[in-house]
Amino acid sequence: MIKAQNLKGFRDFLPGEALKRKYVIQKITEVFELFGYDPLETPALEYSDVLLGKYGEEGDKLMYRFKDNGGRDVALRYDQTVPASRVVAQYPEITKPFKRYQIQTVWRAENTQKGRFREFLQCDADIFGSVSPLSDAEIIRVASSVLDNLKLKNYKILINDRSLFAGLSTSAIITIDKLKKIGKENVKAELISKNLDPNIIDKIENNQPSDFLKEVFNNLDKLGVSNYEFSPTLARGLDYYTSTIMEIEVENSGLGSICGGGRYDKLISLFSGQDMPAVGFAFGFDRLVETLGSLGLLPEKNCSSQVLVTIFSPELLDKSVNAQKNLQGKGINTELYLDPSAKLDKQLKYADSKGIPFVVIIGPDESANNTVQLKNLATKEQKEIKVEEVANYVCPS
Amino acid sequence: MIKAQNLKGFRDFLPGEALKRKYVIQKITEVFELFGYDPLETPALEYSDVLLGKYGEEGDKLMYRFKDNGGRDVALRYDQTVPASRVVAQYPEITKPFKRYQIQTVWRAENTQKGRFREFLQCDADIFGSVSPLSDAEIIRVASSVLDNLKLKNYKILINDRSLFAGLSTSAIITIDKLKKIGKENVKAELISKNLDPNIIDKIENNQPSDFLKEVFNNLDKLGVSNYEFSPTLARGLDYYTSTIMEIEVENSGLGSICGGGRYDKLISLFSGQDMPAVGFAFGFDRLVETLGSLGLLPEKNCSSQVLVTIFSPELLDKSVNAQKNLQGKGINTELYLDPSAKLDKQLKYADSKGIPFVVIIGPDESANNTVQLKNLATKEQKEIKVEEVANYVCPS
Repeated sequence: MIKAQNLKGFRDFLPGEALKRKYVIQKITEVFELFGYDPLETPALEYSDVLLGKYGEEGDKLMYRFKDNGGRDVALRYDQTVPASRVVAQYPEITKPFKRYQIQTVWRAENTQKGRFREFLQCDADIFGSVSPLSDAEIIRVASSVLDNLKLKNYKILINDRSLFAGLSTSAIITIDKLKKIGKENVKAELISKNLDPNIIDKIENNQPSDFLKEVFNNLDKLGVSNYEFSPTLARGLDYYTSTIMEIEVENSGLGSICGGGRYDKLISLFSGQDMPAVGFAFGFDRLVETLGSLGLLPEKNCSSQVLVTIFSPELLDKSVNAQKNLQGKGINTELYLDPSAKLDKQLKYADSKGIPFVVIIGPDESANNTVQLKNLATKEQKEIKVEEVANYVCPS
Repeated sequence: MIKAQNLKGFRDFLPGEALKRKYVIQKITEVFELFGYDPLETPALEYSDVLLGKYGEEGDKLMYRFKDNGGRDVALRYDQTVPASRVVAQYPEITKPFKRYQIQTVWRAENTQKGRFREFLQCDADIFGSVSPLSDAEIIRVASSVLDNLKLKNYKILINDRSLFAGLSTSAIITIDKLKKIGKENVKAELISKNLDPNIIDKIENNQPSDFLKEVFNNLDKLGVSNYEFSPTLARGLDYYTSTIMEIEVENSGLGSICGGGRYDKLISLFSGQDMPAVGFAFGFDRLVETLGSLGLLPEKNCSSQVLVTIFSPELLDKSVNAQKNLQGKGINTELYLDPSAKLDKQLKYADSKGIPFVVIIGPDESANNTVQLKNLATKEQKEIKVEEVANYVCPS
């Protein structure tokens, strides 16, 4: 016998969770398309050299990289920005600006901790081929509109410009990025321990927005985005950003940022040899779902079915099939119990156990009266009505 | 510079194709949920021993299997039936019958040919925990309803019972399965070359439905599924089927079957030690999309945007932003051009190149009149109207 276990560090999503995830994906996609972003799909596997060296040393180490059966050096997608940049370089015929969204899994062999698994979903939106600060503002507006569509409040958009760190070492930037987490005194201590000037943190805290960022802010105001602020110590981990960087955090969630992005005008040239401006963001999907869940912003339903049509007896199967068809025709998710000889009690227990809110019963009396019994499993109320009336009690999903 | 190329044998789906795929997935999901099937997600990577030995020798060879950074022997999902069976064994608390659907990519290192790539999407629906022939009939009905929802006609559901092959060797079954492809005389010749009795093909052609299959057919009639037929030579490739097997083919498509499945009552016991009945099917998604495309049954749109709102001049940006918001509020996918200083001609060319059907222009006159110019890029018609009227010309997506 083989042990029934999923790979450690990875997760199965059973129906209750998978339905919630589906809801969030649908809300995100809705906004992406409302702003005219088009879907892109890239394969999970890439030639390793497409991915290596784009995410810093740590990224190369955490990559799922192996030789395939043909001996090719391949790796699993580590993010969506690099594969999309490869696509932009590979298909120069794509109309620019190219506004694409991408919702696919990525793989990172990280130490797993709360909310961090080795396979996770990213939801990206990016604009390729526009240098205009209106594009930076639009990207921020789209991210913000997604959160509005998910009814998330109390989020804050932090914005900075990577070019304001010009002259600072990566090591210094990494320490400065910790300000919120460890506090100013600890940042200074860490800078000293790295033989760096501890006063750079004071200097950076007093940075003013660059001219480009002022333009971005100006455009954000015109687009009606208000909950943003200039955050001079925001640094972002990834190497490839060149100017605007942004993060969105939910106040008092304790979950860190749920969205991050920025402008990366030099990445695509690694594949094409030609500069191509780009700006975008990614939602960390799992953390977003967790945040929404903790705020009670996810649908409560644990199953697709809204109605179970029971089968009173094998002879009355036809009546139940007709009732199911009638309800399905009205867009109500309706399942038929699958064993015509099961006792009614067993069928009701099944609905209860799954969390199906309504049950329809058609016995000999209802069959003769051309009616159905509609039972609300939460309130235990039951009434005899025409099948056409069921939709008045059960809303289409 | 790194060569911008996708891994050979794998595919990128650019917006035009990705939108069509999204449409098909949505139509499939709609039906799955209408029948009360719930989503399940499993990780791409499994311990190799979960997958090995389930698909026959060929399957083990074509699996993407490697050692991860921690030295664990892992493999990429080869189908969805085996991971779902692992889930059913691992979480015995799931209510039975468990009706789940799953739409995820699978990986097989096959020789690529038309319509066969190494990463492809499968769309599965299965029922776990029911021995009733009504479940076999429901599964066939769900597959059929999906095709109806996609407006596919002229498909035929072929049904057989694996138990009717009892006593025949796998080698004989494989040859018999080729009947449609190579004809009866060649089947006989191949049987002889394998030192098998050539007359078994005649015997099998005259097989009659098993008692169980008669019950399935009886239930199909009650459920209103009519376009099925008993196909005594249908065999299906996979080892794990135990009784009902089915395939759906589209007449004259030349593409072979687009859907296959059956009952596999012994698979889950490999993980749990206990028998658990199961019946289900998978759509070969890429082949289905190809078939729909060749029959003109896919939406024609190549981009999400229905309207491009141009920017006449930086001073009039506000007017354009307001128009965009108005249209978005009506559910119309509306993008804003992203460079306020671009010439109008360039903006129109962008819309044309992307395939956006309508363009809105707000110049100084329209701004003064509180109107917009709505231009239909296909007909070149242009009219000055109130922004509220635009929705009368552009249908919400």
